[in-house]
Amino acid sequence: MTPSAVGALPQLRHAFTIDAFVAPDRRIGAIDEGELIYIPITGGRVHGDIEGEVLEGGGDWCVVKGHYCTVEARYQFRTADGDVVDVLNTGVAHFLDDAQLDVGYFPTRPVFRVENPALRHLVDRVYLGWARSTPELTAIDIFEVLDPLPQAGETR
Amino acid sequence: MTPSAVGALPQLRHAFTIDAFVAPDRRIGAIDEGELIYIPITGGRVHGDIEGEVLEGGGDWCVVKGHYCTVEARYQFRTADGDVVDVLNTGVAHFLDDAQLDVGYFPTRPVFRVENPALRHLVDRVYLGWARSTPELTAIDIFEVLDPLPQAGETR
Amino acid sequence: MTPSAVGALPQLRHAFTIDAFVAPDRRIGAIDEGELIYIPITGGRVHGDIEGEVLEGGGDWCVVKGHYCTVEARYQFRTADGDVVDVLNTGVAHFLDDAQLDVGYFPTRPVFRVENPALRHLVDRVYLGWARSTPELTAIDIFEVLDPLPQAGETR
Amino acid sequence: MTPSAVGALPQLRHAFTIDAFVAPDRRIGAIDEGELIYIPITGGRVHGDIEGEVLEGGGDWCVVKGHYCTVEARYQFRTADGDVVDVLNTGVAHFLDDAQLDVGYFPTRPVFRVENPALRHLVDRVYLGWARSTPELTAIDIFEVLDPLPQAGETR
Repeated sequence: MTPSAVGALPQLRHAFTIDAFVAPDRRIGAIDEGELIYIPITGGRVHGDIEGEVLEGGGDWCVVKGHYCTVEARYQFRTADGDVVDVLNTGVAHFLDDAQLDVGYFPTRPVFRVENPALRHLVDRVYLGWARSTPELTAIDIFEVLDPLPQAGETR
Repeated sequence: MTPSAVGALPQLRHAFTIDAFVAPDRRIGAIDEGELIYIPITGGRVHGDIEGEVLEGGGDWCVVKGHYCTVEARYQFRTADGDVVDVLNTGVAHFLDDAQLDVGYFPTRPVFRVENPALRHLVDRVYLGWARSTPELTAIDIFEVLDPLPQAGETR
Repeated sequence: MTPSAVGALPQLRHAFTIDAFVAPDRRIGAIDEGELIYIPITGGRVHGDIEGEVLEGGGDWCVVKGHYCTVEARYQFRTADGDVVDVLNTGVAHFLDDAQLDVGYFPTRPVFRVENPALRHLVDRVYLGWARSTPELTAIDIFEVLDPLPQAGETR
Repeated sequence: MTPSAVGALPQLRHAFTIDAFVAPDRRIGAIDEGELIYIPITGGRVHGDIEGEVLEGGGDWCVVKGHYCTVEARYQFRTADGDVVDVLNTGVAHFLDDAQLDVGYFPTRPVFRVENPALRHLVDRVYLGWARSTPELTAIDIFEVLDPLPQAGETR
């Protein structure tokens, strides 16, 4: 069998940014997978294609595994038009120092749930997130994954 | 092939009860699976084998599907000894009336995560929950699943 | 606040038994959570309230963590009436010996998906499984969780 | 509060391609979320940074929801060096015609599990997949998500 030709790069487009305020974290402890920590989400804002506010409630379940940690955040935001969007955002963060205060590489896989058909692209398309941490908030740029630019001779 | 002999009934033992206080629910809206609702968890207490307090944070993601709904609650409680236990509790609730205010059949499948080896039975054993709703709180009896009582002639 | 009165024990009723044939396991290796092993499911039968056959395909992702392991099985069975039922079955198994050949305590939390309204109780009710291993197959008794028997003075 | 500055685009790099052979699909039926279908995975090959073969076993649980479907594939591949890699690949596919034979937009979120430290980048980094369907196989290009190129004045 001939291996498939490699397709072109999918394109990314910045859609919106979520600034999520966080409260002090709550250490749950060492479990089989690593060190489990819960970070409450207390509010924030959304700007870009969508303008809105992050709602208090939910949080981020992080598991620290040495030089990196996995994240699993669950919360909601409300758009300026009144739509509530549920967010599940998983990913990995790499620590830049031993104190685990400074985070570098931090991509995520956001999944959204919302009712309004005008926002159904949040549900039926795939997004890639890139997060940046400061002491007060986590800012997550949300990029829509677009079709690759077709290449000459590509098999689709 | 001869069908396996049916084993005896597993035994249940009440371990502890979680009284989780809830804030007013937040309607997210109709998604593919049903009507998505988020119920914040604001505190509460634990009593029985374990004494402790439910911590503010996290909540219950419910999907209403006509006469019943699925629940997926994520939160923590702290024991009197200071251990934090993370809870994931999924299940189904059947409504007793059209207004969906009164809930009858309401079993759940709790999964716990905790560090302290003295509480590792919460991690390496299986539990069954039974929940009861009042306007102010959800009370969940947690039952440990024990070995079936052996029967004469049973193949193990 | 007065703690909730403890409710009565939920009742269990044997609904059916799944005899799932397995092929030799495939060791994936040590990951953060433990030792990951994949066990292919190759067929089998269902007997009890439901008569049917286990379909080839899917398997069981097990993570061995010392004296016990977690299981996560995904497969399907077809009833004698032609309905296909999708199964997700998670649980824990305790080893009785160091060679991890003999399994004792082995309860599971089965979740079913099926179209036929005549089988919707598989979807809108909660079940508890109890599994037994032999070299050729895993037999899982499936028990329906029923309402607790009401107690005098119980608050519902 | 000043909104966070928007970060630069993460970069994508083709890492490898998975050609997964599939057997005829098995219709499970209409469930709450849509039409559930199971597609067995029977073998295939991996080429690029990693050379290897897709192992028989596991499959793809698809839920058709009108003009698109969600996918959730679980299977393994073995590298030329003998390492087994477990794959969980979720995503969405958009249909190009009413017969749902032709698939267009088809990005995925692959998650890998493997023991060998030489392959730990599969575990501690994030990947984006792009899938293409033919009658015999699904080819998935796997792209590693790399750091954005820093912009002048960007807050990190």
